[in-house]
Amino acid sequence: MNQFKVCFHVSKLEDWPVALKNINNFINDISDESEFDIKVVANSAGVLILTNELRSELEPTMKKLSDKGVIFEFCNNALNLYKIDKKLVFDWAKVVKAGITEIVRLQELGFSYIKP
Amino acid sequence: MNQFKVCFHVSKLEDWPVALKNINNFINDISDESEFDIKVVANSAGVLILTNELRSELEPTMKKLSDKGVIFEFCNNALNLYKIDKKLVFDWAKVVKAGITEIVRLQELGFSYIKP
Amino acid sequence: MNQFKVCFHVSKLEDWPVALKNINNFINDISDESEFDIKVVANSAGVLILTNELRSELEPTMKKLSDKGVIFEFCNNALNLYKIDKKLVFDWAKVVKAGITEIVRLQELGFSYIKP
Repeated sequence: MNQFKVCFHVSKLEDWPVALKNINNFINDISDESEFDIKVVANSAGVLILTNELRSELEPTMKKLSDKGVIFEFCNNALNLYKIDKKLVFDWAKVVKAGITEIVRLQELGFSYIKP
Repeated sequence: MNQFKVCFHVSKLEDWPVALKNINNFINDISDESEFDIKVVANSAGVLILTNELRSELEPTMKKLSDKGVIFEFCNNALNLYKIDKKLVFDWAKVVKAGITEIVRLQELGFSYIKP
Repeated sequence: MNQFKVCFHVSKLEDWPVALKNINNFINDISDESEFDIKVVANSAGVLILTNELRSELEPTMKKLSDKGVIFEFCNNALNLYKIDKKLVFDWAKVVKAGITEIVRLQELGFSYIKP
């Protein structure tokens, strides 16, 4: 059983729809034959999904991906920068201290990197 | 003889000119001393090059790169999303089932990743 | 002592502020426990920082990062493309022959790749 390890880096609000489509396509493409470890790391303006009107539109898709095992991580530095209350982070998502450190750590663990 | 393995990820129409310039510069820089395995994976709005007026302007450059061994791959999910007939894919290019899977697979094979 | 090796790829003028913030956050996050080898490779329109009014605003931050060991590299192909005199490259920065070759070489040396 192959296991794909992939880190998606979302640093712009407008990259979310493409990122989610990418992940859906990827999971559909591999799911019959492989397991996956997918992390989505949102930093910089990527965290603005939490306060933007796009949130209500995209949350159901994100939640479904979370239920399938995709892990969503929000950078605490970016939350502070944009003064976003941590309570706004989805229940099913994580906060990481520094998004870049997380992305570097993941690549060191063998994760492929995708910038949508 | 060194062999460089590089995957260029083109997910936006406007990234094509820079991507092609990057690849040309790269090949010119290394070609005397090294071989290369270069894949250009177009997904999301990157596939719009096939139907955009930019096509006729860039196709000669792309074809020349293809003749030098660069492999251009178009994501079938993106072709479907934008309702682009596969017949529009250049004769000398490939269609891959899912662009993201291809990019991940390439990184697992040791390809470097470049987002132009 | 862990050593983080990271390559930041700046190919657009407007990506500089986010890139510098990313690097600052990263260094602050890891500096107590780890060493780092950080290269910032500017190619394509990333080199326009040298002639843009943003230069005077960002240079102090860049210089501070340089003093901490971050290495800034400017692509000579891009300098030629935009007809930027090499004398405009910061004293504390480097010029590399081809930015893409440098980024590929760094990834082959085990550097993680970040596109801000």
